[in-house]
Amino acid sequence: MTPVPVIDLRSDTVTRPTPAMLNRMVTAELGDDGRGDDPTVKELERVAATRLGKEAALFLPTGTMSNHVAILSHAFLKGEVIGEASSHIFRSEMGGLSLLAGLYPRPLPGRAGAMDLGALDACLRPPGVTDHALGTAVVCMETTHGLGGSVLPLDHMRDVWAKSSQLGAPVHLDGARIFNAAIALGVDASAIAAFADSVTFCLSKGLSAPVGSVLAGPPPFIERARGFRKMLGGNLRQAGLLAACGLVALEQSIERLADDHLNARRLADGLHRINPHLVSLTDVVTNMVMVDLGRTAADAEQWTKVLSDYGVLTAPVSKNVLRFVTHRHVDASSIERVVTVFAEIYRTRPAALFAA
Amino acid sequence: MTPVPVIDLRSDTVTRPTPAMLNRMVTAELGDDGRGDDPTVKELERVAATRLGKEAALFLPTGTMSNHVAILSHAFLKGEVIGEASSHIFRSEMGGLSLLAGLYPRPLPGRAGAMDLGALDACLRPPGVTDHALGTAVVCMETTHGLGGSVLPLDHMRDVWAKSSQLGAPVHLDGARIFNAAIALGVDASAIAAFADSVTFCLSKGLSAPVGSVLAGPPPFIERARGFRKMLGGNLRQAGLLAACGLVALEQSIERLADDHLNARRLADGLHRINPHLVSLTDVVTNMVMVDLGRTAADAEQWTKVLSDYGVLTAPVSKNVLRFVTHRHVDASSIERVVTVFAEIYRTRPAALFAA
Amino acid sequence: MTPVPVIDLRSDTVTRPTPAMLNRMVTAELGDDGRGDDPTVKELERVAATRLGKEAALFLPTGTMSNHVAILSHAFLKGEVIGEASSHIFRSEMGGLSLLAGLYPRPLPGRAGAMDLGALDACLRPPGVTDHALGTAVVCMETTHGLGGSVLPLDHMRDVWAKSSQLGAPVHLDGARIFNAAIALGVDASAIAAFADSVTFCLSKGLSAPVGSVLAGPPPFIERARGFRKMLGGNLRQAGLLAACGLVALEQSIERLADDHLNARRLADGLHRINPHLVSLTDVVTNMVMVDLGRTAADAEQWTKVLSDYGVLTAPVSKNVLRFVTHRHVDASSIERVVTVFAEIYRTRPAALFAA
Amino acid sequence: MTPVPVIDLRSDTVTRPTPAMLNRMVTAELGDDGRGDDPTVKELERVAATRLGKEAALFLPTGTMSNHVAILSHAFLKGEVIGEASSHIFRSEMGGLSLLAGLYPRPLPGRAGAMDLGALDACLRPPGVTDHALGTAVVCMETTHGLGGSVLPLDHMRDVWAKSSQLGAPVHLDGARIFNAAIALGVDASAIAAFADSVTFCLSKGLSAPVGSVLAGPPPFIERARGFRKMLGGNLRQAGLLAACGLVALEQSIERLADDHLNARRLADGLHRINPHLVSLTDVVTNMVMVDLGRTAADAEQWTKVLSDYGVLTAPVSKNVLRFVTHRHVDASSIERVVTVFAEIYRTRPAALFAA
Repeated sequence: MTPVPVIDLRSDTVTRPTPAMLNRMVTAELGDDGRGDDPTVKELERVAATRLGKEAALFLPTGTMSNHVAILSHAFLKGEVIGEASSHIFRSEMGGLSLLAGLYPRPLPGRAGAMDLGALDACLRPPGVTDHALGTAVVCMETTHGLGGSVLPLDHMRDVWAKSSQLGAPVHLDGARIFNAAIALGVDASAIAAFADSVTFCLSKGLSAPVGSVLAGPPPFIERARGFRKMLGGNLRQAGLLAACGLVALEQSIERLADDHLNARRLADGLHRINPHLVSLTDVVTNMVMVDLGRTAADAEQWTKVLSDYGVLTAPVSKNVLRFVTHRHVDASSIERVVTVFAEIYRTRPAALFAA
Repeated sequence: MTPVPVIDLRSDTVTRPTPAMLNRMVTAELGDDGRGDDPTVKELERVAATRLGKEAALFLPTGTMSNHVAILSHAFLKGEVIGEASSHIFRSEMGGLSLLAGLYPRPLPGRAGAMDLGALDACLRPPGVTDHALGTAVVCMETTHGLGGSVLPLDHMRDVWAKSSQLGAPVHLDGARIFNAAIALGVDASAIAAFADSVTFCLSKGLSAPVGSVLAGPPPFIERARGFRKMLGGNLRQAGLLAACGLVALEQSIERLADDHLNARRLADGLHRINPHLVSLTDVVTNMVMVDLGRTAADAEQWTKVLSDYGVLTAPVSKNVLRFVTHRHVDASSIERVVTVFAEIYRTRPAALFAA
Repeated sequence: MTPVPVIDLRSDTVTRPTPAMLNRMVTAELGDDGRGDDPTVKELERVAATRLGKEAALFLPTGTMSNHVAILSHAFLKGEVIGEASSHIFRSEMGGLSLLAGLYPRPLPGRAGAMDLGALDACLRPPGVTDHALGTAVVCMETTHGLGGSVLPLDHMRDVWAKSSQLGAPVHLDGARIFNAAIALGVDASAIAAFADSVTFCLSKGLSAPVGSVLAGPPPFIERARGFRKMLGGNLRQAGLLAACGLVALEQSIERLADDHLNARRLADGLHRINPHLVSLTDVVTNMVMVDLGRTAADAEQWTKVLSDYGVLTAPVSKNVLRFVTHRHVDASSIERVVTVFAEIYRTRPAALFAA
Repeated sequence: MTPVPVIDLRSDTVTRPTPAMLNRMVTAELGDDGRGDDPTVKELERVAATRLGKEAALFLPTGTMSNHVAILSHAFLKGEVIGEASSHIFRSEMGGLSLLAGLYPRPLPGRAGAMDLGALDACLRPPGVTDHALGTAVVCMETTHGLGGSVLPLDHMRDVWAKSSQLGAPVHLDGARIFNAAIALGVDASAIAAFADSVTFCLSKGLSAPVGSVLAGPPPFIERARGFRKMLGGNLRQAGLLAACGLVALEQSIERLADDHLNARRLADGLHRINPHLVSLTDVVTNMVMVDLGRTAADAEQWTKVLSDYGVLTAPVSKNVLRFVTHRHVDASSIERVVTVFAEIYRTRPAALFAA
């Protein structure tokens, strides 16, 4: 094969800033955000809070820190952190939750990122410590789900929020990709955020900003979050450079997420035509396609290697599953090429080729 | 008085990026540094490591996170963290050290940021736990000192390093302003860093970059640091934007720190002429002036308020002490005006004016 | 009904010391065990280590502290603590593991306390931190299982130990009731302990001693354990009083555990005759009977209340399950009475009686 | 020399139980205190609470655990733990405070265990986290002081308590030897405990009980303490055996502490006659004598060794200081012998003898 441009489907975190972002960045008014002096950061915080229907917001360098800070700010009282077992806070944050906060993880079984409500009933307790057990410190949800892009139904979110609130447990929403969920549900992001006391979203995934997340919630919560952001080392200085990109992202990048969903659907359809066992079509609702290689001759690591030889970058998420994520740098013709490459490997490469 | 431009002496963190930084930023080659894909970040890490005489380096969003990550990476074994009592890790990081790492702080008495060597001898122990005590996990030094800008003598650093190494305790240097120290000592930064296993410095203080710090040390240490950076939420995405500014900072901002030292000296001399009790001239060796208001009619909070009415921003560090920090946005004429303003307040305002 | 003596089946922790224990206690030679000076404690540690085929042992006030100290002593390196999800360390120690040690719990699915080996394979990692994940700090097993009294097959234990050792992860065995397991398997306790680097057992459960646990393992491990015991507040003073009872327990209480197993079997048979859905006979292998009330007219809390009115004490372990534990104060005639009482309630009390 | 009985002045923790204690122990009514079922423990808790003028109390296995549990129960909110720098919680509990509770130690300078009130003013803050700093979680005092036996003046305690209460910070009193303090001040222990929200004392020091401490405070605090006691592994089973001794200790051991004080005074006078530099007589107010060997030919380790050859056991607390503690097993004639031995060594042994 002749050299071809790389198609990077590893994650939407690879999106580069748009020209409009760079333009806004170099003209942004700056200050020392570590002292609360950066006007562009303040503007982003104001715009984001409004967008999510919350009173206040805080800019943070990453989604992981945003989740850490949110959980600390809610659960400064030690106790259990409840969430679906496969959610990002338990899956990918390297134990930070427990190591940082002295909080005890209580992962619950679930499906497509939605925790089992019976399991929630069984372990929800009022906050604090009794002579029997630690109480619930915070309940966490995640939408869209980072492994598959599924969207929590609003009814499910309402139930979790009602049960938790009744016992005095705050609810945090890891909405790293909340705008993808909003588009999939056909609602405003604030209609989703309504079922959580706090919500975080990422500027640097599908929205294409280079760096940053926003955490929104009630003002006293955001005040505490500001303290914990400092404690964790997240007090950037002239952060207005990054916030400027975030403002452009909120203005210009949300509606185009629908294209990413369409392209994920195209990719799923194409792979499904190759072999229906590869993809569960009903699970593809936003910008991710999970490909089950269990009935192919190779495992996820091997497929990743061979696909990259063809210029298609992707990432294994378990022994037999690859995750493909669509984003601004992946268009319909890229999808077409990915399907063609996948089909070629699938049909023509004998199992032997995959052997190390 | 007619309105005058503000002179901001609160800290060198208020420095805004230079035009050269913004230019480099918008043309920087970018990637997802969370995946190790950003070439500009890699370039900064390479240049910084070389500059400090270390084998490897890591870009981080703040100095606080850099210290956290360094200490975690050294002291993943729980145990005591030894340092001079007034050092930044004990003074200003909001308990992060202890909350994050499960490490036990052991602040030692000292003078001008230099720990007492007898006290060090008394508490240094081999790492680990015995039936008597926790061992030493890491020994920390700080230069220049954040409260006053004093510089650790190289002999002192050599002694701390030798004693610690002999017992198997790693040494971390919080060199947030190491280049100020290097200029004051007339040596290369690597000659200072030589007495530490790891060293961190800030790009966003006197060096004027908008955001970021660098941590340098041996490759296996930096590998662990990469994991802890992720755990704490410091894995930025297109961080090359910030790294580009950092590269310009290392190329263009170091030598001019000498001007900041000169201006600090001018400020100290001016205040000393007003009243010798205000400043200890021998303590002014880099870009900070600590002003003792103990013999004036007002305390530090009151002085801060009145000075700000005159357009001079500064920050109290204790009941009777103000810190003035010189930097790129403060020139000789600014200093002249600060001295004039200070003298005017000092001489003409009766004590009554300060009363609330 | 006329008043009847209470039959306490809540746990074998309710056993009172034997006359022989009290006799040994008042004549025991004592010292300050906080200084390692108590000869009776040393004797118990020597005897217990030999019994378990380990080189060294440590007396501790409780099983919970013994598990805490063991895990800290193995996993002083932070990382993940792997165990079956329903094991005591995750189930009943109130988050102590995470709060105390800064260790991250990684509960695995399993059956009857035996973790799924595939799940183990998927999450075992070398100790330490990489840029991807925290490593494995320690792998824990529990036999007999506190919820049901099941015994880990020796083959399973060998597999867990082999897989863990291969990656450098130490294995801790929570053998609170290891002598019950030994009797059920017809082997010596040391044949079970052989598949763990450390093992703890309780003196105060079926063995009837009033207070205390023993932790056994290699001498350097026990040295570290001694330090952590002090740190957690477990350094008793004239502990020889308690160790004297422990010595009697090891001499006189082990063989009689077979009676407890026989009585549990009798109880299970009796309840099974009432209704086969109440008990799974094949799961009753030591001194516990789990009774499933899911098809009765009342839940576990209600049954507990009504049974206690008849002088039978028991403890609910979930909404529909009661745990009955046999021990030295429960003989064959007690069992007969429990079955009679249960049958009477089951057959004659209409559902309405259970309503609050 | 002919063999002589050992005089053990290392600590009052070496006291063995009295015959009355052993008698009460073997007849005590017992239950499973892990379930709150031990009547003798309940009786001890009731008696101790009354004695201290508090509403509720909890029995714990050690003083260290009692301090841990007290601090956790007050300071379940993370934040700073303020205390005098040389107090036991910072000096001897091996970092447990920080490792267990995620709390940040803030040791203050002081004299004879009394913290500097100006330093207290400077760091007291309302509980919680702000964007500037962690708040105060709990303020701790210690009387008598473990290094020297000094007694906090009631005025000092009143001041600390008033300042702390005003800001909403609870006060914990480590009163391990509070009855020694009460006798020295000529007041009831409750008059001391009145200046603290919670107070702990040890049964196993001068009071001669074999094992145990008591923590007293308001009922909701004690409820939380019960949960944390379980979490740390302090839920003993038939603890009534130990509580029985504790009851006897409270009935019979308190008044005789005056003898220990008298003997400490005799020892101090005797050593002072040998050389006034050895002892500061005004500092000897309870049952401890600190001996300064700085002007002798040997250091504390060497003196400990030589004294033990003469049958006098003592413990170095720093390079040049030995601590002698009087207790029930040390009478006036023992003191006389100790002085004679010390004088003999001091006068006749040339410096060379101390050399290794």
